[in-house]
Amino acid sequence: MQVATLDPRLNVKIVGGLSQLCPPDVMRGEEVQIAGFLRQRPDFNGLLLLPGTHSKHVWIKDQQVQSFATHMTGEVFAILKQHSILRHSVGGDTEDQAAFADGVRAGASGQGLAQLFSIRAMGLVSKNTPDAAQSRLSGLLIGAELAQVPQGTSVVLIGAGKLTDLYLQATEITGQHAEALDGADLVLAGLTQLNFMRQ
Amino acid sequence: MQVATLDPRLNVKIVGGLSQLCPPDVMRGEEVQIAGFLRQRPDFNGLLLLPGTHSKHVWIKDQQVQSFATHMTGEVFAILKQHSILRHSVGGDTEDQAAFADGVRAGASGQGLAQLFSIRAMGLVSKNTPDAAQSRLSGLLIGAELAQVPQGTSVVLIGAGKLTDLYLQATEITGQHAEALDGADLVLAGLTQLNFMRQ
Repeated sequence: MQVATLDPRLNVKIVGGLSQLCPPDVMRGEEVQIAGFLRQRPDFNGLLLLPGTHSKHVWIKDQQVQSFATHMTGEVFAILKQHSILRHSVGGDTEDQAAFADGVRAGASGQGLAQLFSIRAMGLVSKNTPDAAQSRLSGLLIGAELAQVPQGTSVVLIGAGKLTDLYLQATEITGQHAEALDGADLVLAGLTQLNFMRQ
Repeated sequence: MQVATLDPRLNVKIVGGLSQLCPPDVMRGEEVQIAGFLRQRPDFNGLLLLPGTHSKHVWIKDQQVQSFATHMTGEVFAILKQHSILRHSVGGDTEDQAAFADGVRAGASGQGLAQLFSIRAMGLVSKNTPDAAQSRLSGLLIGAELAQVPQGTSVVLIGAGKLTDLYLQATEITGQHAEALDGADLVLAGLTQLNFMRQ
């Protein structure tokens, strides 16, 4: 949307975000990356998955967003780590790949919420390092999110760094396989694309 | 376990709680109610479900605990309500039965985590009262917990008050049907029972 300005040298546009009535959902920001992606890959049909505090699942068909869904995976991870009883168990910053994989498998099979307490209990009745606990928690929640993606879907992850890498690992574990694209590149492509649009 | 005392008039025992290695889990406190229940209903085979901050699922067969599992349902509800973005939506203290029922059905069908953000989005794109948001959150999490209970299981809820009543409603919605017993009565029955045991 073009914005009127007092100074004619300024060309200001607002990207309006997306909202969806059924099921209710909202997006603000990620649509720029999606526009960038569609510019680069106009023939793509499938799922764009943008990991984050509020992870977005965006279904694309015929160069359009068909529907989208927000998953609070990153936020649930953070508040469980900081505020729940799991805070006594979870910590560290080294990934424990076996614990992560166990978590992903359990989460993907519908045990994401059900097995949260096992992270605490493992530390009480057997051995559990803070790294393993954190990786297991991360795996449970990412696995639960991926349980919402049908097998055989074309999945493109948009993001960067450690979090996107965890999602990439998780899709390998669940057999969903994905490719990952850099989010920053797509922001630039999206802003360029949107600047050339009429409205 | 009998405890030695300096004063012979004192008869002190400690109830040791339960721990389980595989899958890892621990219980302290609820075992007294379970002992009380088994005293009253020695022929029961099925699931005792004790709602709470850490809800317990206790499988009973032949007057023994076969296995148990802890669900962090109450704690996850509390921290989402207090610390997550849902705190802007969730509140009130009047149950919205339709919102609760919707939540239970979604949670029981594996959408417990996936639909959390819809509570927030509903308030943005359509109407959603704090009561409805809270009831929906409660329903999503209780429904997700009940998804772990196979249909046809004999379920006895042990507890009292509003929370146990919500679980009772939820089991009606999922078609699992349960009976509810008062937790305080069973504590007394359990303490009496344990006092007569040798060790």
